[in-house]
Amino acid sequence: MPVPGPGYSITVRVEAPSSANAAGDLTTAVGQVGGVLTAFDVVDSHPDAIVVDISANVLSAEHADDITAALDALPGVRVRKVSDRTFLIHLGGKIEVTPKVALRNRDDLSRAYTPGVARVCRAIAANPEDARRLTIKRNTVAVVTDGTAVLGLGNIGPAAALPVMEGKAALFKKFADVDAWPVCLDTQDTEEIIRIVRALAPVYAGINLEDIAAPRCFEIEARLREQLDIPVFHDDQHGTAIVVVAALRNALRVVGKPIEECKIVVSGVGAAGSAIIRLLLRKNPGDIVAADIDGIVHADRANLDDNLRQIAAATNRSGMSGSLHDALVGADVFIGVSAPNLFGAEQVATMADDAVVFALANPDPEIDPLEAQRHASVVATGRSDYPNQINNVLAFPGVFRGLLDAHAHHIDDEMLLAAANAIADVVDSDRLNASYIVPSVFDTAVAPAVAEAVRNAVREQRGEDE
Amino acid sequence: MPVPGPGYSITVRVEAPSSANAAGDLTTAVGQVGGVLTAFDVVDSHPDAIVVDISANVLSAEHADDITAALDALPGVRVRKVSDRTFLIHLGGKIEVTPKVALRNRDDLSRAYTPGVARVCRAIAANPEDARRLTIKRNTVAVVTDGTAVLGLGNIGPAAALPVMEGKAALFKKFADVDAWPVCLDTQDTEEIIRIVRALAPVYAGINLEDIAAPRCFEIEARLREQLDIPVFHDDQHGTAIVVVAALRNALRVVGKPIEECKIVVSGVGAAGSAIIRLLLRKNPGDIVAADIDGIVHADRANLDDNLRQIAAATNRSGMSGSLHDALVGADVFIGVSAPNLFGAEQVATMADDAVVFALANPDPEIDPLEAQRHASVVATGRSDYPNQINNVLAFPGVFRGLLDAHAHHIDDEMLLAAANAIADVVDSDRLNASYIVPSVFDTAVAPAVAEAVRNAVREQRGEDE
Repeated sequence: MPVPGPGYSITVRVEAPSSANAAGDLTTAVGQVGGVLTAFDVVDSHPDAIVVDISANVLSAEHADDITAALDALPGVRVRKVSDRTFLIHLGGKIEVTPKVALRNRDDLSRAYTPGVARVCRAIAANPEDARRLTIKRNTVAVVTDGTAVLGLGNIGPAAALPVMEGKAALFKKFADVDAWPVCLDTQDTEEIIRIVRALAPVYAGINLEDIAAPRCFEIEARLREQLDIPVFHDDQHGTAIVVVAALRNALRVVGKPIEECKIVVSGVGAAGSAIIRLLLRKNPGDIVAADIDGIVHADRANLDDNLRQIAAATNRSGMSGSLHDALVGADVFIGVSAPNLFGAEQVATMADDAVVFALANPDPEIDPLEAQRHASVVATGRSDYPNQINNVLAFPGVFRGLLDAHAHHIDDEMLLAAANAIADVVDSDRLNASYIVPSVFDTAVAPAVAEAVRNAVREQRGEDE
Repeated sequence: MPVPGPGYSITVRVEAPSSANAAGDLTTAVGQVGGVLTAFDVVDSHPDAIVVDISANVLSAEHADDITAALDALPGVRVRKVSDRTFLIHLGGKIEVTPKVALRNRDDLSRAYTPGVARVCRAIAANPEDARRLTIKRNTVAVVTDGTAVLGLGNIGPAAALPVMEGKAALFKKFADVDAWPVCLDTQDTEEIIRIVRALAPVYAGINLEDIAAPRCFEIEARLREQLDIPVFHDDQHGTAIVVVAALRNALRVVGKPIEECKIVVSGVGAAGSAIIRLLLRKNPGDIVAADIDGIVHADRANLDDNLRQIAAATNRSGMSGSLHDALVGADVFIGVSAPNLFGAEQVATMADDAVVFALANPDPEIDPLEAQRHASVVATGRSDYPNQINNVLAFPGVFRGLLDAHAHHIDDEMLLAAANAIADVVDSDRLNASYIVPSVFDTAVAPAVAEAVRNAVREQRGEDE
């Protein structure tokens, strides 16, 4: 049975008798129906009754109802109110726009606004590059989505995507002091999205595309990179690819295999899978075999789109066809960014010795990690309740911090690889083991290390180019 | 000679002898060339020398050079560095994006981001109106410009407009706790601007158009009002009209004239002038005569565009033609939102007794207010260095606070008039006089009063409509 996590937690306010065993009865009732008690706060007390806020992690709305019913069924207990703590946190949104300048009096106003601001405007009109110095452009990134591929929820539209984009903006600020702003577009037309982002660009020093469905995301990214003089990053592609390459580097250190001799199976060739394959190819792997819902990707397969055709051409040297299970036989590494429960321990057993399994489908991985562990030497997932969580939070804040610091005008694979190496290197050899191939998302060394690596990559390249 | 204000202030770091009269020499030198000394800070001191930061308000870049040269010419004094304090304030921009939620640990992350956020997304997908409760949409306004009519600077483009939009966003937060975000569009195509703002709307509960040139601004505003279910306000039009109507109401209380008997001359029929005329017409004035660079607007004038034709039809009952000077003869009120130095005291003398003159052209008004005062009973400008400053900051923060609080889906003249009345009423009859017809922009009673009036207007109308 799954264990309730803090992603779904409720607070139930109850009135209960002030008897000696009241607290015990309440907490026992929560536990008996599978709730995980996280807090018990007495908010009011009378001679014959107490009012208590009981907080608990639950599994689902039905589970929350069960807990509420169990409490209400206790003798003398009355449930007054049930609050969903997750929703409370999101009320009114998770970010705000705050002045960095004082506006206490007339003098402040004269400098920050009219008439003083006119000179700043004129300076930028005369020298547009000054916008990177004298405006928020210096430190600001747009988080752009059309709401077509949000988390595992699919095409839920721009308004429903906003809570995720706000969360992303909050993480940007928290982990790398980057100001990020949600741009949730009420259009799913590729050309229109490109035109709009281009028109919005004066305010931003970088574009973070987010949760845009494949294959449209490839076209949007490529065209914007051509047209804009600021870096365009698609987190579902490049962020994921960075963290996977970092984790794989350390996993292969644990099992002692050089990537040049590894056969790597990638399941899922949407945004994430395609980008992982492209970045891995830069590391000269032994071979990569990609698979999707129609089986192994090979050049002769029917109905390949542009993206799959490119992938077929660059992978699968032996020209395999067949199913994902066929691909796994003898493979050194499995990387899944696809769908839940595609195979079991018996397929892992067919892989090479010391297999590495990254089962990253969210929330339910391609294989239960405990099953995978029976035959694989290193196992990672996207989940926070297993070791080795592969989480984009390790990459995007530091990547943009580095790009902004270096005033980068574009981003390329060299910078992504530099970021991946920096994440991997945060885990030093003393700490590296099969259960610790990537640093914690709360490791404060990660973002500065990534930023420095990206800054250096930008500057090195600029030196070479100019 | 004009007096230097804080909009242009410099700090000069000098090394000077540590003699008894060094400080006096330095400050005297600044004053002799017309600088206004605002601070004198010793930052370092040695037996034979001191290092001092001298801050002064100046008139222009040339004036700053004169002051620097005067200091450098003093015996034993060496200028080390000159900083422009206005530019310093703008460095890196004037607003930032700040998380409102804690992200200290795994539990916080689970609630604010994945997996908890997925439930919030699903709730909004199921009921889109919930975005106003569970996201930043509840409190967020877009400040949209194409950079075509910025301050008095004209068409300087979107990047150079950004410092103004940031300032506006800072004022929104400071005065009314509204989160506002700059949208500076790199296009001047009416259709494209409309399409873009429509596509951006999911994140916002209101649109504040800003510094978009007439007549395009009328079309953009009207079409967006048709297409969006959130209020669209054009500050150059509606903000200005609100404050002018508020000021005029109090000015006419001072001179004891009912607006129904007043002849009002409006100079300038761009965004501001047109909106002022339209809002004033709701108050049944005796007559309005509009004038622009081609003289008085009347129905038979050649080459009237749509906007001017509408204005000609609604004003100038006597069918006057001629110049602005002709229009002023016998007028009770002059409202200028046009160009500097259009007339002098002799024209004010031709106006009716107890004339009211609002000379709002920025930075130089239609008539020097000291000249106007010779014959007018009430004089107002847009400047901060004369009494009766007509400043949009009195209107827009409170207007949007009210609209957001009431979850308004549109804005109309009733709400603008309610805002105008609220601003006027902050000046009670004890304090009302010819030099005090509008409250100070720092009067903290203004925004809440405006917000309440707008909230009530929205709710009243909703009660009538539904």
